[in-house]
Amino acid sequence: MEFSKLNEKHLRKLRSMVSEDRFSTGESNLDLHSQDQSRHPPSKPEAVMWPVDRREVSEILSYANEHRIPVTGWGSGTSLEGNPIPVSRGVVLDFTLMNQILSIRESDFQADVEPGVLYRDLNDKLRHSGLFFPPDPGAGATIGGMIANNASGTRTVRYGSTRANVIRLTVVIAGGEILELGSRSSKTASGYDLINCFIGSEGTLGLVVEATVRLRGLPEAFSAVIATFPSVEKAGEAVFEIIRSGLDPAALELLAQECIALINEEKNFALEVSPTLFMEFHGATTGQLEETMEMVREICQAQGCTDFRPGVGRKERDQLWAARHELGEMIVRKHPDRSHTVIDVAVPISAYPEIIALAREESRRIGIPGYTFSHAGDGNLHLVFMGKKGDPEEWVRIEKANERMVKKALEMGGTATGEHGVGLGKRKFMPMEHGASLEWMKKIKALFDPNGILNPGKIF
Amino acid sequence: MEFSKLNEKHLRKLRSMVSEDRFSTGESNLDLHSQDQSRHPPSKPEAVMWPVDRREVSEILSYANEHRIPVTGWGSGTSLEGNPIPVSRGVVLDFTLMNQILSIRESDFQADVEPGVLYRDLNDKLRHSGLFFPPDPGAGATIGGMIANNASGTRTVRYGSTRANVIRLTVVIAGGEILELGSRSSKTASGYDLINCFIGSEGTLGLVVEATVRLRGLPEAFSAVIATFPSVEKAGEAVFEIIRSGLDPAALELLAQECIALINEEKNFALEVSPTLFMEFHGATTGQLEETMEMVREICQAQGCTDFRPGVGRKERDQLWAARHELGEMIVRKHPDRSHTVIDVAVPISAYPEIIALAREESRRIGIPGYTFSHAGDGNLHLVFMGKKGDPEEWVRIEKANERMVKKALEMGGTATGEHGVGLGKRKFMPMEHGASLEWMKKIKALFDPNGILNPGKIF
Repeated sequence: MEFSKLNEKHLRKLRSMVSEDRFSTGESNLDLHSQDQSRHPPSKPEAVMWPVDRREVSEILSYANEHRIPVTGWGSGTSLEGNPIPVSRGVVLDFTLMNQILSIRESDFQADVEPGVLYRDLNDKLRHSGLFFPPDPGAGATIGGMIANNASGTRTVRYGSTRANVIRLTVVIAGGEILELGSRSSKTASGYDLINCFIGSEGTLGLVVEATVRLRGLPEAFSAVIATFPSVEKAGEAVFEIIRSGLDPAALELLAQECIALINEEKNFALEVSPTLFMEFHGATTGQLEETMEMVREICQAQGCTDFRPGVGRKERDQLWAARHELGEMIVRKHPDRSHTVIDVAVPISAYPEIIALAREESRRIGIPGYTFSHAGDGNLHLVFMGKKGDPEEWVRIEKANERMVKKALEMGGTATGEHGVGLGKRKFMPMEHGASLEWMKKIKALFDPNGILNPGKIF
Repeated sequence: MEFSKLNEKHLRKLRSMVSEDRFSTGESNLDLHSQDQSRHPPSKPEAVMWPVDRREVSEILSYANEHRIPVTGWGSGTSLEGNPIPVSRGVVLDFTLMNQILSIRESDFQADVEPGVLYRDLNDKLRHSGLFFPPDPGAGATIGGMIANNASGTRTVRYGSTRANVIRLTVVIAGGEILELGSRSSKTASGYDLINCFIGSEGTLGLVVEATVRLRGLPEAFSAVIATFPSVEKAGEAVFEIIRSGLDPAALELLAQECIALINEEKNFALEVSPTLFMEFHGATTGQLEETMEMVREICQAQGCTDFRPGVGRKERDQLWAARHELGEMIVRKHPDRSHTVIDVAVPISAYPEIIALAREESRRIGIPGYTFSHAGDGNLHLVFMGKKGDPEEWVRIEKANERMVKKALEMGGTATGEHGVGLGKRKFMPMEHGASLEWMKKIKALFDPNGILNPGKIF
């Protein structure tokens, strides 16, 4: 695609579409919108705009489409695959100011929100209603960003990814047209399901200006468990058995020993430095959970579990999850002279023990600092390698390991990216994963965005 | 669209693509594929073919596309909106012979099936595994037909519609190309979600030749309940309160008094002839369910419930659900000189008491036999009117009632069709429901099926 570089006329016109203080070409604002939390190189936009309503978004997109100006949506920049880096420059639309919770309909288990609402803020607001919005990507994700990336997290094993928790969207497409997708009815068989094309499309098909999300009831009772294993492989077998037994965990995370050591160091925990499962189960009563705990204990012990600690209290549990959520940042802080690649494959759960064993093998043989942790209950594995900046040879080795892992995951019926999206880093795996369907994804892109102005350079 | 009428050359060529006994232009076969279970007038295809594999489906579609021959997929013809009636004639592809359960992977909670597998047969096969495929459309639906219509049923309130239970599809599109969509991984963030465009597209975008479905664990314990109310409106309020309280029913059906009378008559039941809720709750233990039952009882009694009967035994429960599933057929049998329109709106649950009250009002004022029953827990209401055959004035009145109900449901944020699909009967409501998005659905149709050969005349 041929894009226009913004000239004085473009800038003047764009500036006129929003109030003066919501348009910037200042270096610090361009810098702040040039990179996410990945290792992908920054690229500065030519201008940043902060729209406050759908009318502005529509007007900007209509103009940008006519003048072939790239437009990239921006939530909070916490993505991990370069998803919102404006590699073709142009305009970044920062949705920070569209951060209103428009309506909470407790009796329908629904809320209407603007895209800039923080995941955390919605749940804070819901605290006293007994409801929550479950996808749990951690950090300061916005709901718009979560929808763009079909984000998921520790709660996905029970409550699904963002896709399963969004039922209605208002989007603006490249020409500026505003579309309503989905329904507030909990079920419908009316027409084509377009909403799911947009969820997970990383801002390449349209920009979300409003969403209706599903809420769930907070569980009456929970039980958090820490279980320690002699090897990652044994812990992986336990994960498979727990899922296979239908025990329906609300979180089932695996952390290899190097991750536990790091958490101990940073958070002053005194966890045994061994492969560990952090688990949580939800129920209507504490009594209900006791039977579940007994079954989980049996499964873990059959895999040689060396320490099984159920009944972790609320405070310690909250600290554990906070530590789990910060793990990525801890790893980055630990290696200031290195940057990271996150392998993010996911496989059907029966293949989980094999893929986790493979991850350990790669970790051992590559001779580069590696960290294995996993949304294990979903079969979603992260293996973070910290490559030395400016050492191309290390990066070749890391990329080869990534390719081997993805190839293996796809052979097992899995996916190249369980939750971080394609962005820049996973594009090369798309032909291998999707085959002929990839061409049809490109046709969908061309249909909604014929000039390719929306977040160019991503996914494909 | 201009279609070809099948000439001798077409017939010879098509016949050569399958074995002799799997091609027919015989009147009885054409008749059998001319109408579903709706009142929409029959239309005979010009030929019926029974493919046995994806290669045949691909070859047929490629030829049909080239020669502008309409092709309509056929499961078991149990749909209710004329969805598979070949209104432009051409070829019907009957998937009856593609009825293999290809693989059951219990440990992944997944099965791979061909489209002609009956819903019932898959669940029979699963019986001893402790797993089941939950969407419960009743009757003899095939899984291919369920996917085409995004079918749902009594279990949807807990387990979701067909969409929520299908994770991977192989489809053949109009040009004959075979596409793999989705993933066997329980989560993925890789590329555009095309699979959901095809689910619920009523065979207008492509034909399913293989599907991977999600299985669920059979509950260890269940409790079935019958609760009787002084009015449909009061029962509707109880439905709302049960859902709002997060009690998570596995079925929550409302039957108005005329439906209970009919069931008593046909099945020799002795149910009290009052508005009634049939409910079911699932749990891991019987003890778990007792608390739930107490809360349900309190809610029902607060709405003036006159009889609350929990602990319905397995045999009686199975009979109740069988009767519920046959209700549509009972209504048709009861009025041999009449045919039916099913109003199928669904609304957010907080609007349910209002929509059910409206249904009763329409029923009272129209002076035509009407039956109200409902997948109440989903906010999905059925109001069946039995209009006199050959009495156009009655049909005008029925259509006006249908239009009033749909308009009201849409105003409430609901949908024109909760589960029967658009087919022929609900097309006229699509502009009202989808607005500008409808044009984009048409563009998606034109993208995948530029000659419009797949099930022409439906949805739009």
